[in-house]
Amino acid sequence: MAGQGTERPWQVRATFLARNTNNLIRNVIENLKVQPNPEKKLIPLSLGDPTVFGNITPPEELLQAVRDSIDNNKSRTYGPTNGQLEARQAVADYSIHQGRVTADDVILTSGCAHALELAITVLAEDGQNILVPRPGYMIYMTLAEGLGIQIKYYDLLPEQKWKVDLGSLQKQIDDKTAAIVVINPSNPCGSVYSEEHLLEILDIASKNRVPIIADEIYEHFVFSGHKYTAMSALSKDVPILTCSGLTKRFLVPGWRMGWLIVHDRNNIFGKEIRQGLRNLCGRLLGPTTLIQHALPSILTSMPQHFFDGVMFFIESQAKLACEALQRAPGLRPIMPQGSMYMMIEIKVSMFSEFQNDLQFIERLYSEQSVLCIPGQCFYYPNFMRIVLTVPEEILREACQRIIAFCKDHATPKEKHMEMITNKLSVDKEWRVIY
Amino acid sequence: MAGQGTERPWQVRATFLARNTNNLIRNVIENLKVQPNPEKKLIPLSLGDPTVFGNITPPEELLQAVRDSIDNNKSRTYGPTNGQLEARQAVADYSIHQGRVTADDVILTSGCAHALELAITVLAEDGQNILVPRPGYMIYMTLAEGLGIQIKYYDLLPEQKWKVDLGSLQKQIDDKTAAIVVINPSNPCGSVYSEEHLLEILDIASKNRVPIIADEIYEHFVFSGHKYTAMSALSKDVPILTCSGLTKRFLVPGWRMGWLIVHDRNNIFGKEIRQGLRNLCGRLLGPTTLIQHALPSILTSMPQHFFDGVMFFIESQAKLACEALQRAPGLRPIMPQGSMYMMIEIKVSMFSEFQNDLQFIERLYSEQSVLCIPGQCFYYPNFMRIVLTVPEEILREACQRIIAFCKDHATPKEKHMEMITNKLSVDKEWRVIY
Repeated sequence: MAGQGTERPWQVRATFLARNTNNLIRNVIENLKVQPNPEKKLIPLSLGDPTVFGNITPPEELLQAVRDSIDNNKSRTYGPTNGQLEARQAVADYSIHQGRVTADDVILTSGCAHALELAITVLAEDGQNILVPRPGYMIYMTLAEGLGIQIKYYDLLPEQKWKVDLGSLQKQIDDKTAAIVVINPSNPCGSVYSEEHLLEILDIASKNRVPIIADEIYEHFVFSGHKYTAMSALSKDVPILTCSGLTKRFLVPGWRMGWLIVHDRNNIFGKEIRQGLRNLCGRLLGPTTLIQHALPSILTSMPQHFFDGVMFFIESQAKLACEALQRAPGLRPIMPQGSMYMMIEIKVSMFSEFQNDLQFIERLYSEQSVLCIPGQCFYYPNFMRIVLTVPEEILREACQRIIAFCKDHATPKEKHMEMITNKLSVDKEWRVIY
Repeated sequence: MAGQGTERPWQVRATFLARNTNNLIRNVIENLKVQPNPEKKLIPLSLGDPTVFGNITPPEELLQAVRDSIDNNKSRTYGPTNGQLEARQAVADYSIHQGRVTADDVILTSGCAHALELAITVLAEDGQNILVPRPGYMIYMTLAEGLGIQIKYYDLLPEQKWKVDLGSLQKQIDDKTAAIVVINPSNPCGSVYSEEHLLEILDIASKNRVPIIADEIYEHFVFSGHKYTAMSALSKDVPILTCSGLTKRFLVPGWRMGWLIVHDRNNIFGKEIRQGLRNLCGRLLGPTTLIQHALPSILTSMPQHFFDGVMFFIESQAKLACEALQRAPGLRPIMPQGSMYMMIEIKVSMFSEFQNDLQFIERLYSEQSVLCIPGQCFYYPNFMRIVLTVPEEILREACQRIIAFCKDHATPKEKHMEMITNKLSVDKEWRVIY
């Protein structure tokens, strides 16, 4: 190369990693071919950010914890790359529902996405695969595919409260499977798994000797009558990397404060995985110490009525949207049990103008200025996801617009048929699905 | 795999990436075989963190900017993955010394390490190499080797103010070279390159069609009589990714607020590199919005006398240490021109007890409780690096202990010889080296 002179043209290519790191939601939403209706105010039911409308805000105790932190030098110095000890201890104490956790088991990360990146990159590499639920949040694809890690999908069952299709899970496992990702409570489904079902999943992982990555960023996000159980609290042998953070529950997604917890009761990971995680922490040198230093106070000072209030609100919203959208011809909302989302089936056959869920949501956007995430962003066509945390009056308005849209576009004859079918499904099917 | 039963043993291995992500400084320091002398207070001259002793603190204006930010909802919501527009615009305005910069050219990152990770991973991949200075800060190795990217070294010349050995640089370039890293001002050398020398480096990059990663986290860290010039301000064609952040200059390393700026005057990167960088941002979803939202205020409200005061202090410390350590037999301090470090040659031949720089610093640690970073952490044996930002009285004490240590251990006969040689080198050599 040396001395070849100045005539050779420049050729600078982006790497495989850079070209193959894709965010499916962003790609789809940023490339919509239509604009919202200028005569109707935009309602984004697309943003998985409970704080964006300003109707739900963190309590004063949390903000004060950071204010108190600012003046302390330890909130400004470099921290250990796996996080300050006091902060890791606070996360360990907070995570007691996950089973025995010590500060040594905790790694603080730049948001839950970073925790997932650590979990994926310590376990899986080029040529291996990880199993993720379908439908499922797609950050795993974003994090894995650029590194040559294949994503394989196991199915969830919408008719069974989005439980895992255990046969599908077993079938997807092969000798290249490095980990199974379990999202509980689920984004986008809103499902919350029972202990019994979690044990069934653990049994498959155990028999096949595959560790689990437990994405529990929605831990404690459950509606009345349901119970969240940490996967790690049930595991007898399967080693688990649990990922969570302040993001959703504490209503500060932008702060990027997450954590990864190593659960390895039988010392299956051994030193190698723990050392590998520590090594990987050396890439970014830890999350912001401004928040780390406030963590002990944040994790202990939040009033329970704050959490209860948020969950009561989201559950009310879920009921509101579910009841309203049952009146939309061609749609079938599936009542969630937790998290902050609802999946809605689009019976595409009832809309002769639309070939798929993307066309449906594009037209809904251009006519009614309501933006939903099409199911294809979760590798799950003929569905769409809505976010439940928008203000109540906005959710009502959105539901009315969606109903009007469906009435405008459902094929007349089938519309009639559907109303009959709908009635039947309410009688026969809905009690199960709720 | 399915159905093979429960008898097969678990085998979970850490990935190549996890096993090969190494932080050389941490590995060496954490594996020291000795303890500090319990009778002497530990003086760590090892930590590249100007805030750790609490003697230099950020001004009230900076802390107030974050206090003001806390109550605003935009400091808590998710931001765009490349950073909030207002914050990117503020960085563009702040970086006018780098040449024309728009908000579109700026990506906000989780510290400068993350900016470097983006720069390296968008340009270089498995099988390629990047060139880094020797001696040089080793985060590039940490970030690259786990991805199969080879690190190749070009030499700096201690006798010529640590200028780049241009012949060595040219010689290291091959058809697998994806980028040249230039650190200016330098960690660990403290050198600050003239415009003329930067143009010589650019000329080699241009002739060989290799882009530059400019690590300028110590931008504006220069002593009186020296001038920092941004590499990008001089480039006519070579595309440059410049990495910087709040870390050092604003005395908040723990906040992890960095940025990458794309300089591509001739559109050589084209869309692919910019899109690749945007894609890579989707992995971590952006740095903390709490600091992002305060950036416009932080970058415009800091009084100039604050920066001047910090630089005056560091320069005084450099002179103090350099003058003092010239009295240490067997050491040769090299006066820096900027940044916050000084490299000191250890004439190992003068210490018959020690085979190398690591043995020297280990014994210094165990006898005098002074901890320095051995040159081997920068791939540069027979040197050590000290940090200049510790309080003055502590630096004085450290220098006295180092001198005493050298007097204790320098071989008597050679000690005498050395004193003569030292005197000569002060006369003949030092003026050049300063």
